[in-house]
Amino acid sequence: MTSAFQVLQGNRLALARLLTQIENNTPEGRNTLVELYPQTGRAYRIGVTGPPGTGKSTLVNQLALHFRRSSEREPIRVAVVAVDPSSPFTGGAILGDRVRMRDLLGDPGVFIRSMASRGSLGGLASATTGIVQALDAAGFEFILIETVGAGQAEVDIARLAHTTLVIEAPGLGDDIQAIKAGILEIADVLVINKADRPGVENTERALKSMLQLGHPMEHHFQNHSREPGHWVNDEAASGITPSTGGPQFSSWIPPVIRTVATEGRGIRELAGAIQQHRGYLQASGELAEREMTRLRAELDLLVHETLIGRWRSRTSQERYLQALQRIARRELSPWQAADELVQD
Amino acid sequence: MTSAFQVLQGNRLALARLLTQIENNTPEGRNTLVELYPQTGRAYRIGVTGPPGTGKSTLVNQLALHFRRSSEREPIRVAVVAVDPSSPFTGGAILGDRVRMRDLLGDPGVFIRSMASRGSLGGLASATTGIVQALDAAGFEFILIETVGAGQAEVDIARLAHTTLVIEAPGLGDDIQAIKAGILEIADVLVINKADRPGVENTERALKSMLQLGHPMEHHFQNHSREPGHWVNDEAASGITPSTGGPQFSSWIPPVIRTVATEGRGIRELAGAIQQHRGYLQASGELAEREMTRLRAELDLLVHETLIGRWRSRTSQERYLQALQRIARRELSPWQAADELVQD
Repeated sequence: MTSAFQVLQGNRLALARLLTQIENNTPEGRNTLVELYPQTGRAYRIGVTGPPGTGKSTLVNQLALHFRRSSEREPIRVAVVAVDPSSPFTGGAILGDRVRMRDLLGDPGVFIRSMASRGSLGGLASATTGIVQALDAAGFEFILIETVGAGQAEVDIARLAHTTLVIEAPGLGDDIQAIKAGILEIADVLVINKADRPGVENTERALKSMLQLGHPMEHHFQNHSREPGHWVNDEAASGITPSTGGPQFSSWIPPVIRTVATEGRGIRELAGAIQQHRGYLQASGELAEREMTRLRAELDLLVHETLIGRWRSRTSQERYLQALQRIARRELSPWQAADELVQD
Repeated sequence: MTSAFQVLQGNRLALARLLTQIENNTPEGRNTLVELYPQTGRAYRIGVTGPPGTGKSTLVNQLALHFRRSSEREPIRVAVVAVDPSSPFTGGAILGDRVRMRDLLGDPGVFIRSMASRGSLGGLASATTGIVQALDAAGFEFILIETVGAGQAEVDIARLAHTTLVIEAPGLGDDIQAIKAGILEIADVLVINKADRPGVENTERALKSMLQLGHPMEHHFQNHSREPGHWVNDEAASGITPSTGGPQFSSWIPPVIRTVATEGRGIRELAGAIQQHRGYLQASGELAEREMTRLRAELDLLVHETLIGRWRSRTSQERYLQALQRIARRELSPWQAADELVQD
């Protein structure tokens, strides 16, 4: 019985083994993924990101629990992929949170996987892509992809998602807000977790004004005359924000949702906002567009990896090191060396 | 008169024009860099990074001023490259800081360049490399490379430096400390700026304990029985920290320096720590090693860019889009498509 067949049959052990192979980038893992590929494309992927200390793990667990219980007919299967691109020694914390979440751990309809950054970031993004595809083929309807921190890695991983949640919490200070401009741009839904803490109004005000400032793009501008979390027609809004060209049908205003994940408060509203965003993506045609963008990025990454692998296999170590020595002696510029090394 | 010749003659306008060409990745810029390459390798490069709100720009300006005034014979020429890989709208703030620093602006021995992230992060790192080389060839003895924020981009840009300063400030909160583990690993010198603020002892304690926890590597471990900022022999220290294999001669303990940049306090001590680190790098042979690592990374990046460029020029858009459509219809996996597209 092939590994792919076992995974499709719902064999959790075979799935766990496959995920490890993908993480380690083995040929077996890749071959199984190729076999499974026709079965992918059914899962709805939700990205969750934000700075440490905002309670992301608890929120993700609560969301998973909510999805799990939300269907009355057939129970929905949920997977969680927790990715930590920062220093390896925070990996334990994520795992710790998982272990504490007893509600989910005994449940056969839930699959949780933590990934720490062991190699390069590029490798992590590529491994996460493969892992999400395996879980998709294995029949998980919702896949929650959680990343820690801020930076390019989060943005890359968030690109895997259909709906991206950016989590904040009150009292993280003004200094930090500045970093987050880049992260806010990827938010489809903003969540203020720990909303029972003092300062929640300030955080909400700051987020809303940053949304206004930082989103000149058509999909993200804030329109205060309308209810956020609903979509507006660009024609009606064009007097406020100039459109940046291209056919535009409608825009999504990222809603700001307050939650207290430790008590399960606001989780239903958050799940509602995700469903609303999903509806928007489908009705506007943006879902197909995002899928193509994602596939394109994935294909480009694989083409690059393949090109580099082929070049490595045909270029001798000796020739490479000679070029490096000549660069170090300033006899040859790096640009000339690259041209020479790439000639067949 | 060629552009390269003008730059070597000290023509500031020609230099500024070249930097713009490099930023825009034009063939003229690249050709001039190839011409200038034999004149590079003399500048000492100092990387400065840390979260927003720590006063990095002021500190960099004060350091530049200090280097400028420190030589009694021939005045030292100093360049500052301020890179902002985060959202484009913070670019103005950096420029604003520069403009405020009147002490430096009228000085012909100082060159300041701000770069905002306009394209991809990869492009930014590559452009920064070229800009630093141009400034090196133009005869600037010290090049300060300042980056904002936290994340992979900072780490990539810090790799350009001989000595990397990581700047902190009191009162940035516990939550943030967690992110910085990755950033601390690249620190050669730690700076607590705004050291007149309350909480400076806590920040120093937190940094020192993080250094202890997070640095099992030979170059970075903390040895409390010795004075930081000096180097220790591994043999003597081997009873405390097990060495990780390979020949090791000595280790550098990142010192923690307090500064109040707005008042110029601690700048002399900081410059001293940088000179000490420079001496350590030279005496231990690590300087040559870091140079080779840096050149290797640079060559690899250029080889990748060249491979991708050549592949693009020989692959028709039509063939690429057909493969993408087949992936979207799940007829072909992305791995198979990449293999097919890379075949000649």
